[in-house]
Amino acid sequence: MDGPVRLGLLGAGRIGRTHARSIADTAGARLVAVVDPDEAAAASVVRMTGARAASAEEVFGDPAIEGVLIATPTDLHAHQIERAAGSGKAIFCEKPIDLDLSRAQRSVAAAVRCGVPLMVGFNRRFDPSFRRLRQEIEDGRIGDVELVQITSRDPAPPPRAYIQRSGGLFRDMMIHDFDMARFLVGEPIVEVSATGSALVDKAVAGAGDVDTAAVVLRSAGGRLCLISNSRRAAYGYDQRIEVHGSEGMVFAGNPAATTVTRADRSGFATDPLDPFFMDRYAHAYRQEVATFCAVVRGSDAAYPGGPDGLAALAMADAASESLATGRAVRVGQVS
Amino acid sequence: MDGPVRLGLLGAGRIGRTHARSIADTAGARLVAVVDPDEAAAASVVRMTGARAASAEEVFGDPAIEGVLIATPTDLHAHQIERAAGSGKAIFCEKPIDLDLSRAQRSVAAAVRCGVPLMVGFNRRFDPSFRRLRQEIEDGRIGDVELVQITSRDPAPPPRAYIQRSGGLFRDMMIHDFDMARFLVGEPIVEVSATGSALVDKAVAGAGDVDTAAVVLRSAGGRLCLISNSRRAAYGYDQRIEVHGSEGMVFAGNPAATTVTRADRSGFATDPLDPFFMDRYAHAYRQEVATFCAVVRGSDAAYPGGPDGLAALAMADAASESLATGRAVRVGQVS
Amino acid sequence: MDGPVRLGLLGAGRIGRTHARSIADTAGARLVAVVDPDEAAAASVVRMTGARAASAEEVFGDPAIEGVLIATPTDLHAHQIERAAGSGKAIFCEKPIDLDLSRAQRSVAAAVRCGVPLMVGFNRRFDPSFRRLRQEIEDGRIGDVELVQITSRDPAPPPRAYIQRSGGLFRDMMIHDFDMARFLVGEPIVEVSATGSALVDKAVAGAGDVDTAAVVLRSAGGRLCLISNSRRAAYGYDQRIEVHGSEGMVFAGNPAATTVTRADRSGFATDPLDPFFMDRYAHAYRQEVATFCAVVRGSDAAYPGGPDGLAALAMADAASESLATGRAVRVGQVS
Amino acid sequence: MDGPVRLGLLGAGRIGRTHARSIADTAGARLVAVVDPDEAAAASVVRMTGARAASAEEVFGDPAIEGVLIATPTDLHAHQIERAAGSGKAIFCEKPIDLDLSRAQRSVAAAVRCGVPLMVGFNRRFDPSFRRLRQEIEDGRIGDVELVQITSRDPAPPPRAYIQRSGGLFRDMMIHDFDMARFLVGEPIVEVSATGSALVDKAVAGAGDVDTAAVVLRSAGGRLCLISNSRRAAYGYDQRIEVHGSEGMVFAGNPAATTVTRADRSGFATDPLDPFFMDRYAHAYRQEVATFCAVVRGSDAAYPGGPDGLAALAMADAASESLATGRAVRVGQVS
Repeated sequence: MDGPVRLGLLGAGRIGRTHARSIADTAGARLVAVVDPDEAAAASVVRMTGARAASAEEVFGDPAIEGVLIATPTDLHAHQIERAAGSGKAIFCEKPIDLDLSRAQRSVAAAVRCGVPLMVGFNRRFDPSFRRLRQEIEDGRIGDVELVQITSRDPAPPPRAYIQRSGGLFRDMMIHDFDMARFLVGEPIVEVSATGSALVDKAVAGAGDVDTAAVVLRSAGGRLCLISNSRRAAYGYDQRIEVHGSEGMVFAGNPAATTVTRADRSGFATDPLDPFFMDRYAHAYRQEVATFCAVVRGSDAAYPGGPDGLAALAMADAASESLATGRAVRVGQVS
Repeated sequence: MDGPVRLGLLGAGRIGRTHARSIADTAGARLVAVVDPDEAAAASVVRMTGARAASAEEVFGDPAIEGVLIATPTDLHAHQIERAAGSGKAIFCEKPIDLDLSRAQRSVAAAVRCGVPLMVGFNRRFDPSFRRLRQEIEDGRIGDVELVQITSRDPAPPPRAYIQRSGGLFRDMMIHDFDMARFLVGEPIVEVSATGSALVDKAVAGAGDVDTAAVVLRSAGGRLCLISNSRRAAYGYDQRIEVHGSEGMVFAGNPAATTVTRADRSGFATDPLDPFFMDRYAHAYRQEVATFCAVVRGSDAAYPGGPDGLAALAMADAASESLATGRAVRVGQVS
Repeated sequence: MDGPVRLGLLGAGRIGRTHARSIADTAGARLVAVVDPDEAAAASVVRMTGARAASAEEVFGDPAIEGVLIATPTDLHAHQIERAAGSGKAIFCEKPIDLDLSRAQRSVAAAVRCGVPLMVGFNRRFDPSFRRLRQEIEDGRIGDVELVQITSRDPAPPPRAYIQRSGGLFRDMMIHDFDMARFLVGEPIVEVSATGSALVDKAVAGAGDVDTAAVVLRSAGGRLCLISNSRRAAYGYDQRIEVHGSEGMVFAGNPAATTVTRADRSGFATDPLDPFFMDRYAHAYRQEVATFCAVVRGSDAAYPGGPDGLAALAMADAASESLATGRAVRVGQVS
Repeated sequence: MDGPVRLGLLGAGRIGRTHARSIADTAGARLVAVVDPDEAAAASVVRMTGARAASAEEVFGDPAIEGVLIATPTDLHAHQIERAAGSGKAIFCEKPIDLDLSRAQRSVAAAVRCGVPLMVGFNRRFDPSFRRLRQEIEDGRIGDVELVQITSRDPAPPPRAYIQRSGGLFRDMMIHDFDMARFLVGEPIVEVSATGSALVDKAVAGAGDVDTAAVVLRSAGGRLCLISNSRRAAYGYDQRIEVHGSEGMVFAGNPAATTVTRADRSGFATDPLDPFFMDRYAHAYRQEVATFCAVVRGSDAAYPGGPDGLAALAMADAASESLATGRAVRVGQVS
């Protein structure tokens, strides 16, 4: 197909608007239509991009639209994947595909059946530092991977209402880390042991959830991955990964807004980390959309794809079960 | 005036194309016309921005063009400033204004006489880390400024032909550091002592120039600034500034492309610095153009302006004289 | 008592010689006698300190000796503690007290019964950076402790013969980290979940041991602590601790032998870490012995003491059981 | 000669006591006698080392004393060097040898004439990081040296009375940096350009001195060295050196007392630098005395020696003249 890649956007919330901006910044891409029941939200995307406001049905029915980005609430994802697949459109869907693994599996199967590519929004795979970690591993710079340590802390917990609908910390927050583990460990993850507490907000415990968690993953070949999560970090949005291997170690830390250090009577000081994940991953979000555009035109594979979304979900399920039972839990292999 | 700021660009070389891209990325700005005798260069800007290729005279004569960016070879700057001023257009001119201080002074005077704003391309003033240094000083975080240390090293020397036309290291390369010194010292610079050698390329000495230099500036109140320059750094483009005061110190280092560190038998390793100044200052270049757009519409002062360009040039002149005579040289106060 | 503190040393192996040197460096302390069946080992301590070579019975029977340091193989510790206690001598014993918890408990009880102080060789408690972590916590600088992360990697595994007698990674290596967790978490540890693999040397698996391990601890109030161990790190002896709390985070890294960084075409490089734990903790070892001297004279409490040794052993037992069963295991509370 | 190296110490002030302690810590060295008109000062060294209090004449006349360390006020150095040389003793003398270059030259000549080794107290040559810088250069890791940058800042100015007798900042403080420049530049320094101000204490200007200074050195082959000094740094004792060469750069920074970083709402923070030069260079001071012991017994060359002391003094003289005249000044070559 000639001309710019023509895209539709479902959902004009925070993440939807980010994708709209990325599309506007991508040479060779054009946002044709945006869908959101909140007219003001849709209008802001219209102003930013020149797209038209539309209904989901119009988007699915418009043969000129080649791909759709699904950035709606999670409970709409699976259905919209199936509708988009049925319309023959390439699909980008935010994580998680669905809170229920079997529902998610059915929607992924639909995309396969319809022969449309399905890409899942694990934006961290596009972060330059995390990609570099993987490159170093693939280049054999640290030998065989033996231990992975992932530390993720949000600056502050989301509203309680959000947490209640989120599917729990494992499906909402740690799912990114599960995907990073798969990205870096280099073998299937077969077992999950989870521990957690509600330390930031005791009310979270009432809802059966945790806000502070430690999970250990085990791969088929015995490689270990430790993940720790906290819903709160006074000093900003903290995301670090370290991979230890037989020949060495690679580490990716947090980027800083400036390179400035101040020294005075109290010592040396630098700024807190950026508190906002969209700034932290700004480059990754743009790269993700650029990749989707290539996927739409068939010049790139859908990566990360549906199976990646399902695998992370299966790990979240196993973590939830482990937390409840105090046992290491086998991860169901999904596809 | 309504609608986007309408701009003309003189010069479609490396830096001209960078400005064209910044204009394209700036909401509320539009590049209307681009001028370059090299048709291929002009055409690449046309493709990138939708501007029309034009002659300089057409740009000066087009009443719809509100401002011009001068990114031509240095020997054309002064004349073009005068022509643009005569046409009533706001002016952005790359540094240096001219290699000859009095010629530069006449062109700055023309802009003043015609009542048009003139902004000079000291892009480093827009670097977030260097701005932050100044902010810390203004906020009184380090007390009175006493010592400034500026280290600037290029990854590799430019072609000899470029060096021969460059006006020498002080006017071509260290002029940025002279401007940074003025930006941070907070007092007029009154004296310059310069030492230098041709260590990178002995041929440079034949042309009366140096490629490795150490300059000490002295302000009216006795504050000192040390600047060192080298035309070569094996590890990339290196730009650091440190300001020491009565109550503390602030330091700005080099940004890194990733946050990755690798550790192995040999020790800990991180990447070399970005070798290309346009990547290093990508953000600063965009901010510079955005500021010029505000200047064109009168919502921002022309900063840095003509007097800043002249002052840095006068410091370069003093450094050249100091290098030749082995004496500390008073800096002529210009305006 | 007047004059220098008079000490006897049981065991003149690597760690024994280190303690002998620390005693020699401590003003107000004197090593009177050293015991080792290996005459050459004993002789080297004699030369270094002027102590006399003696038998254990002579040491226990010499009323002039006020305190003994036990640095013999682990299987002798418990008996020697009891003999020293029976002789009324203050005791410093290397970790672990015994591989068998109940045997260790009996020896600790003997010291209590005899009214002699018993100090256990958890040298890391005397490391200036780890002490500082605890000080920051006690000063309330990071609010309530929520997550502790301890990373410990040896440069290379010990000989297989050593590993076979070691009681396993949890009792031999991670026991230091269990003690650090207790030192920093600020609450009793109640539950342990362990995962591990033999990745460095498959033969270790045959002996029922692991060389790569990930353990999660849970405190009475739900605080979490992640510990990871590896018997091998290409880049040296790596010991880091991070404590995350409600108001911030503190981190202690690895010291470096010099402050030198080199930058060249390949990037920036610093040295590997010191490969030898005795250099890493040289200051801590001296401080430990100085503290024991104060304990002997009654001017300082025996800290860390017998109960600390038992508690870490109980955690190692729980970790072993968790590794074998795949379940989170309650830690028996010992005293 | 057999047995421990027998030493006498002239001067039991701060630096004298440091050397006494180093001798006590050095296996194979013994302080036999200490000289100081202040009886309490001498007595403290007697207690620390078991040396006897004596007069200078007794030390020079005691044939059992093989070497003397001169740590008296500067105006006594030259005479005491000559007396010690006449007595055939190996000499260690604190810097500067004398404030007057020709007086210093006569005393160095006396040592040569008497055939006794003379070592000068440039302790920084024994700092592990600075030695490593030189090693990297000698190993060819950065190619040809082109630019050296030395930053030295004291935490706070000494008492005015001290400054008045000090010979000025160049002879008292920067003399260490002059020696470091010689240590690292690898060629004779031929020219000095100095700039300075009294910013910390205006009263210093009245005495013809400065407390903030910037000096540029030029070597025979055109290599440049920038030195900046300040008598005050709010954040502690700051000593950094950077050497830039044709193939790369090496840098030595400041050591830290702990490796602890704290992060909270305000950002990331580490401690100020150690404010006391004797802690900063504790290892170097010990190494210096150990080297002198080897020099006494003839197993090591007197390094740094008399000529090094004179060369640094000649550079200080040239810097003073440059400061007064505003001209680059040739450094007299001394020997």
